[in-house]
Amino acid sequence: MTFTSPVASEQARFIEGVAGSLSSFLSEQRGVMATVSPDVDPLIGAISSLVTGGKRLRALMCYWGWRGAGGPAEDPDIVTAGCALELFQAAALIHDDIIDRSDTRRGGPSVHKRFSQLHETSGWALDSEHFGDAAAILTGDLCLSFSEEAFSDIGTRAASGSPARRIFNVMRAEVMAGQYLDILEEVAGPVRDRAGSVNRARSIIRYKSAKYSMEHPLALGGALAGASAELLAGYSGFSLPLGEAFQMRDDVLGVFGDPATTGKPAGDDLREGKRTVLVGFALNQASAAEAAYLDRMLGNPGLAGEDVARIRHLMVDCGALDATESLIAQLSTDAFEALERLPLDGLALQALGQLAEAAVSRAA
Amino acid sequence: MTFTSPVASEQARFIEGVAGSLSSFLSEQRGVMATVSPDVDPLIGAISSLVTGGKRLRALMCYWGWRGAGGPAEDPDIVTAGCALELFQAAALIHDDIIDRSDTRRGGPSVHKRFSQLHETSGWALDSEHFGDAAAILTGDLCLSFSEEAFSDIGTRAASGSPARRIFNVMRAEVMAGQYLDILEEVAGPVRDRAGSVNRARSIIRYKSAKYSMEHPLALGGALAGASAELLAGYSGFSLPLGEAFQMRDDVLGVFGDPATTGKPAGDDLREGKRTVLVGFALNQASAAEAAYLDRMLGNPGLAGEDVARIRHLMVDCGALDATESLIAQLSTDAFEALERLPLDGLALQALGQLAEAAVSRAA
Repeated sequence: MTFTSPVASEQARFIEGVAGSLSSFLSEQRGVMATVSPDVDPLIGAISSLVTGGKRLRALMCYWGWRGAGGPAEDPDIVTAGCALELFQAAALIHDDIIDRSDTRRGGPSVHKRFSQLHETSGWALDSEHFGDAAAILTGDLCLSFSEEAFSDIGTRAASGSPARRIFNVMRAEVMAGQYLDILEEVAGPVRDRAGSVNRARSIIRYKSAKYSMEHPLALGGALAGASAELLAGYSGFSLPLGEAFQMRDDVLGVFGDPATTGKPAGDDLREGKRTVLVGFALNQASAAEAAYLDRMLGNPGLAGEDVARIRHLMVDCGALDATESLIAQLSTDAFEALERLPLDGLALQALGQLAEAAVSRAA
Repeated sequence: MTFTSPVASEQARFIEGVAGSLSSFLSEQRGVMATVSPDVDPLIGAISSLVTGGKRLRALMCYWGWRGAGGPAEDPDIVTAGCALELFQAAALIHDDIIDRSDTRRGGPSVHKRFSQLHETSGWALDSEHFGDAAAILTGDLCLSFSEEAFSDIGTRAASGSPARRIFNVMRAEVMAGQYLDILEEVAGPVRDRAGSVNRARSIIRYKSAKYSMEHPLALGGALAGASAELLAGYSGFSLPLGEAFQMRDDVLGVFGDPATTGKPAGDDLREGKRTVLVGFALNQASAAEAAYLDRMLGNPGLAGEDVARIRHLMVDCGALDATESLIAQLSTDAFEALERLPLDGLALQALGQLAEAAVSRAA
């Protein structure tokens, strides 16, 4: 991918459009909030700084879904859809970080941490941590409303009853369901049958990540451009296995990744008790003693570096890492084969191929 | 208000329509969730039980705003708008109860409490309280999305750019801003100037409650029926002071109400550290020693019955209760006078009068 490739330059224009549109949307909202009270400004500040970063993966999937279905390159509707997706993602991250007790996000403090720091530096009374969580719940709610406001701004193409609106609705409901399954498995996994753990983990991945990050954004872009049911089905055949592979790569990095590259402390997924496909394979393939040890360590916030090292070893030794890597390889192959079969012009095909490549081969 | 009055029977038909529509909306969503996993059902269960109860105050304000602006009695659009408002209110309550650490709601466990109880009775691992909060954050998010989905189902009348859509957007943003001001005052109030506390409390009331519960729902109904800017301004003149009086009545009941009638333990607002108008008057009118005592007690979760009694006494003795009651009386008078000036037919006028009466004179 050279700097001046047609895909890169078209993507850059779109991303710039989304960034500009987000910035004017949020400064308008900042004005509305200023009429309430200057005290409310930190909520908009937190949202702004969150939507400034990120890979814009969902917006890009949506864009190429649109272009692949014949949508024109410079159209305000697809930019607005990109904004709605980015705002939704920001809202999800804000609440996720409370749920996962993550204090950092994209190299800075997470939103609840920003507010608890504001509490501390301001010398306010009562509990700074509770204030941080409460303020972040409200900021996430505000951002979720903004996302919807942006989505409805698309107008006719996203009106009630339209395929795009239907996809947007299902996307929201399914990702929340998937996140619930994720936190449920953390607590219920230890008392559920171990043999089912890989399947349960795959179901979590599908709803919390693959559909939300890949399948629905791509379909949304397609639907906004009037894609046929056949094209949308073809999109799913590509994006669903891709999204599963993407999330499984993330899960492998969560245990085996280099903290210097991923930006997350090694083993944090284990401390949170995430029961991923990798963990599921390990629970089933390790010796009884090792599986019991792993089960005991999952969700232990005090997990030390040596425990993480021991867990890595057992995951390698019992073949769980290999099994996960083969599954990622298989899903990637399925995705790329499905991509080949899509009736797309060169540019969209190339762009989706690049996004797919980046999704499954990344190191961070 | 007799059982068979025209207002009562028309309201009953509308409420029945909203209840029926909520029930079919949620059973459709339950179907969508079932395709994800049966494990997700408790999220819908929690939302269903929450929207089953309640006074439907916002839906009724919306209805009479619609009727007053000439909307016909039997119209599916106003029923859908009522559903959207009820779902929004349910979402707000779910997150509010996490923020306020309230374990009960409408006589039953609050949503986060339901989930932590589910955790305990299921014998799941790790922290039941954290699981409860996390699950309730997600349930609230889902419910917020449902609210929007219902609102967009109204179609053309609520399409992007319409006055109704604008009101709905502003309503959401303002109530979240108001809730933030509320939690901010709990922690920042103790270190801010005491003289400004009544004004800050009134600003919180305006955004968190008066606009959200009264002004916006009434305006929304009006806007959906095509109300003129003049009528909407008239609606505001009535509903804004009414909403302020309504919330101040609530705050008085939070300290002086009978737990048997309110359903909430006496003094819970004090334990949460709510800095209401009543508290603001007390901080300014009590002796220095008593004000310092009150300041120290606010937000103290271990506040005992004798402390609550002492605070009640000081609020009476320093005239804070009287000052609050006069303000409620003044705002009520303003509201009723504005109501008289509204160009409404007999039925809408009568209905709004009854709603207003119930709002300011209630004991629970």
